[in-house]
Amino acid sequence: MDFSKLRNPGDVKKLSPKELEDLAKFCREMILKRTAVYGGHVGPDLGVVEATIALCRVFDFPRDKIVWDVSHQDDVWKMLTGRMEAFTKPEPYSVIGEYTVPGEAPEYDLFYAGHTSPSISLSLGLARARDLKGEKFNIISFIGDGSLSGGEAFEGLNEAAVLRSNFIVVVNDNQMSIPHDHGGLYRNLRDLRESAGAATNNYFKAIGFDYMYLAEGNDMAKLSEVFARAKDSDWPVVVHINTQKGEGYAPAEAHREEFHAMPPYYIKTGTPRSVDPQPDIASVTRDYLLAKCESMPELLIVTTSTPEIFGFMEKERRQAGRHYLDLCICEQTGVSVTAGAAKGGIKPVYPVAGTFLQRAIDQMIEDLSLDNLPGVLITFYCGVYGIPDATHLGFWDIPLLTNTPNLVYLAPSGFREYTAMLDWALKQDKYPVAVRAPFGPVEDAEEKPDADYGDLNKFKIIRQGSEVAIIAAGAFFGRGRETADLLKKNGIEATLINPRFVSGIDEGMLKDLEKNHKLVITLEDGCVEGGFGAKIAQFYGLSLMKVLTRGVPKKFVDRYEVDEFLKECRLTPAQLAEDIKKAIK
Amino acid sequence: MDFSKLRNPGDVKKLSPKELEDLAKFCREMILKRTAVYGGHVGPDLGVVEATIALCRVFDFPRDKIVWDVSHQDDVWKMLTGRMEAFTKPEPYSVIGEYTVPGEAPEYDLFYAGHTSPSISLSLGLARARDLKGEKFNIISFIGDGSLSGGEAFEGLNEAAVLRSNFIVVVNDNQMSIPHDHGGLYRNLRDLRESAGAATNNYFKAIGFDYMYLAEGNDMAKLSEVFARAKDSDWPVVVHINTQKGEGYAPAEAHREEFHAMPPYYIKTGTPRSVDPQPDIASVTRDYLLAKCESMPELLIVTTSTPEIFGFMEKERRQAGRHYLDLCICEQTGVSVTAGAAKGGIKPVYPVAGTFLQRAIDQMIEDLSLDNLPGVLITFYCGVYGIPDATHLGFWDIPLLTNTPNLVYLAPSGFREYTAMLDWALKQDKYPVAVRAPFGPVEDAEEKPDADYGDLNKFKIIRQGSEVAIIAAGAFFGRGRETADLLKKNGIEATLINPRFVSGIDEGMLKDLEKNHKLVITLEDGCVEGGFGAKIAQFYGLSLMKVLTRGVPKKFVDRYEVDEFLKECRLTPAQLAEDIKKAIK
Repeated sequence: MDFSKLRNPGDVKKLSPKELEDLAKFCREMILKRTAVYGGHVGPDLGVVEATIALCRVFDFPRDKIVWDVSHQDDVWKMLTGRMEAFTKPEPYSVIGEYTVPGEAPEYDLFYAGHTSPSISLSLGLARARDLKGEKFNIISFIGDGSLSGGEAFEGLNEAAVLRSNFIVVVNDNQMSIPHDHGGLYRNLRDLRESAGAATNNYFKAIGFDYMYLAEGNDMAKLSEVFARAKDSDWPVVVHINTQKGEGYAPAEAHREEFHAMPPYYIKTGTPRSVDPQPDIASVTRDYLLAKCESMPELLIVTTSTPEIFGFMEKERRQAGRHYLDLCICEQTGVSVTAGAAKGGIKPVYPVAGTFLQRAIDQMIEDLSLDNLPGVLITFYCGVYGIPDATHLGFWDIPLLTNTPNLVYLAPSGFREYTAMLDWALKQDKYPVAVRAPFGPVEDAEEKPDADYGDLNKFKIIRQGSEVAIIAAGAFFGRGRETADLLKKNGIEATLINPRFVSGIDEGMLKDLEKNHKLVITLEDGCVEGGFGAKIAQFYGLSLMKVLTRGVPKKFVDRYEVDEFLKECRLTPAQLAEDIKKAIK
Repeated sequence: MDFSKLRNPGDVKKLSPKELEDLAKFCREMILKRTAVYGGHVGPDLGVVEATIALCRVFDFPRDKIVWDVSHQDDVWKMLTGRMEAFTKPEPYSVIGEYTVPGEAPEYDLFYAGHTSPSISLSLGLARARDLKGEKFNIISFIGDGSLSGGEAFEGLNEAAVLRSNFIVVVNDNQMSIPHDHGGLYRNLRDLRESAGAATNNYFKAIGFDYMYLAEGNDMAKLSEVFARAKDSDWPVVVHINTQKGEGYAPAEAHREEFHAMPPYYIKTGTPRSVDPQPDIASVTRDYLLAKCESMPELLIVTTSTPEIFGFMEKERRQAGRHYLDLCICEQTGVSVTAGAAKGGIKPVYPVAGTFLQRAIDQMIEDLSLDNLPGVLITFYCGVYGIPDATHLGFWDIPLLTNTPNLVYLAPSGFREYTAMLDWALKQDKYPVAVRAPFGPVEDAEEKPDADYGDLNKFKIIRQGSEVAIIAAGAFFGRGRETADLLKKNGIEATLINPRFVSGIDEGMLKDLEKNHKLVITLEDGCVEGGFGAKIAQFYGLSLMKVLTRGVPKKFVDRYEVDEFLKECRLTPAQLAEDIKKAIK
């Protein structure tokens, strides 16, 4: 049987039980083949091989609908819905995304769903549409146990439980978030596993779902059986399956946390193909926070199940001990706990990906900022060197965080300034502070950065020049410096400014610049609309000063190549120098 | 006993059982006395009179800590924590806020907590701080059953359940959100009430809490007893109390939804003191949506338990029937369901307060915008005429919604344009669209607004002038028109523009304006930083055009008087005309 010829879920229905088992083996090989070259969510994908095949066998896609949560467990789904060649043939490897992408297979991939926990609510929308139109088909939310911790998943369950029509939630319980998950719900899932689904106080039954349990979540026949039981039900059903993250590949079974998401690796050993010898932001943050655990008895490091972004693997977490708190994938709670802990008189620091902080904007405004509590956040993966996937862009943090009151948002130019800013943020007790971790090839503006940032919104002139002032924020400081160097070769001595703050402007300095500058250009590593430069453009509205604001445009880009994208944004030093010369002509 | 002399919770401890009963009566009178004049959350406050007194009797505030959720149930709390005079003496009535306000009583009011569902997570932060410092005291989250539906409450429960120290959650179950609550959790609460707490599949026990139930949640003695049992526990406990919203005041007991929040009313009858005879935005929206229910078989009106904002009381909800969907207080799910329903091929429209939409920014970006689904939102209470309380400001919606891709945000000048825009939004199938409901004294820019807004970001010149162009967005269009009239009296014929869109700019028109204008002024009813005007200031950065952007400054204001505040912002037509004249001199 040549499985590489499978084109759609219907093809799976024709296979014999033996062929289905072989297909599972084939899919595993293909997952390894692709992820070894491109990296990927190896563990989640390996864990749901049988479940995905069984779903295709039992249900009638695309008539029936499925929403994956998080959708990075979709490799086999992609193989069986017309995208097999992305796995079997080396060339088109990169043409498919890591998540479900509606543009790739509109009938099958309904949503991107790249962030955790929306699947049940999205499915509810589909269900309401189906019911209003008087149609009949199955709707399945396929959700990992990790994703269940996010509040939106509960919201969806609460509402779905009272539907009087088909609604199937498959809980893919592999006992892992990115690290191990924990919390009251997870004790209940453990009780359910240990009692083969019979424990009293069943979370899903308490909310009102019919409930089915399957211990052998990597057994195709049994999966097919339990899915068939749930199929065409006219009421809400949870199918709780116990799966193994990384199933069938020894290194992934042994290192489940590392194999949640892997860079390119050697299949034989499971070791990454290359290790970056440069100190990166994760290890800088790790070393910084571990040292602080020693010197600050009242430090609390909060994470929402992404400790790997700041280099906290099992060893570091143990070392941090009671200074470390994982709140599951709950960014809303992450921010509120940060606010509460600051109110309680300790020093919370919450490192979080900027793209995930989008989930807690209300808590940023209502809990941290309105109460004006000195909690500290570190935003990761912001800017063009973050995660180049449409679902995880780090472009919107400056607009989302700097146009509401009180929060101080600092953008360090390099690693030294980064730790200096963190030092200040943790020492002071007046403001909520976020520090934007610098990503990409960054350089510090100064050998010795300031220790005190309490004089808010004071920019710093690094080189005094005239005619042109380059205000280069955060990770783009180096880009500004290079641009100034290029201009110098053209006889233009530009003033080079490290603003340090992106949440406010230095009106005194901006006013001064009017004396002998005719152009101010702002560079920011994020969306240029509603960002830092916009504040400066507004400030100079009535002045004769010309203002050029540069950053990333307001649009979604998917799987971009950074240097290409920077060119598209006219953000290379050569382009910037050229545009500056044109503007002052 | 003169209860008006009570100064702190300790004073309550000295009272006899008989006096405590009298105190409850006194508190009820005071609630009515104050809210009859100022309006307020009458029902929630009346429901927790006994519980609040019993808490003060049993616990040791301020050593013990409490977080109210939502904090608008805090009238008795305020009386017993040093703010009695705001109730007993007419004069200082207005000096206290509707929510807990840290500035009023720093030891007692820990957070504003004006939005639903953060209490458990905030308390978790306090608990982690307490435990890290090795302190011992009680921490209580006092949360309504309505607030339990918001995902963050679940997130907090999940994490709190595994604490090994004191953590008390009082579930104030009055069987109401703003309207009746519903969903799977609420069936479980009903089962628990009906079984006196003994039902199998207890939601709280499933998550891992110790659990106590009290049927008589308005019985002071029994409340004291159950609180005393929970006090000083070294593990997480839920105390589930069954209370009556509006208890002790017949009109509030009979009209529980209306009395959730009341305008000033006559105590004797429970009827509002005045009824606005003008058509307001709620009734315009109500009539519009009810008519659409008739003509659009695939319309789905989504609410997150605030149907009163668009005039849907019980009668209208029944009339809308299957076109109406209340999702509890779950804005994240509100947006995801809107996205899912649009994907499912029907026409969802989700009216929601702008201040609450802050809770679903990630879903706006990741579900609605990235998937580019034609769901429709209507944002309420945005701008200065929204809710003038620090916790519910409608100032941040434009920065939060217009600096990320795809979403089309329309700001109608008046009611006619409002319904025209809604018509288009519901008809088209290309974009996610939000329409900003116009609040305040608004006027339509045109007698007959356009029917089609598919040519995105086309501004409209309402009066052609020269030298000065006033771009007056949404509810501030009238303010722009008045300013133009004033200027005319001074011999300046300003161009008056209705931009209609606040999510993008009309580059062609802006370019044209350069020919015979030297100043563009933008007026927007919201935060001026990162808003609509900022986009225009950026556009003109290299041009000679002067730009003045006007709106609300980036700061929190609490219980402001609108006209005063507008003056502070230099937004009166007279101030605007003056500033324009100065700018073009």
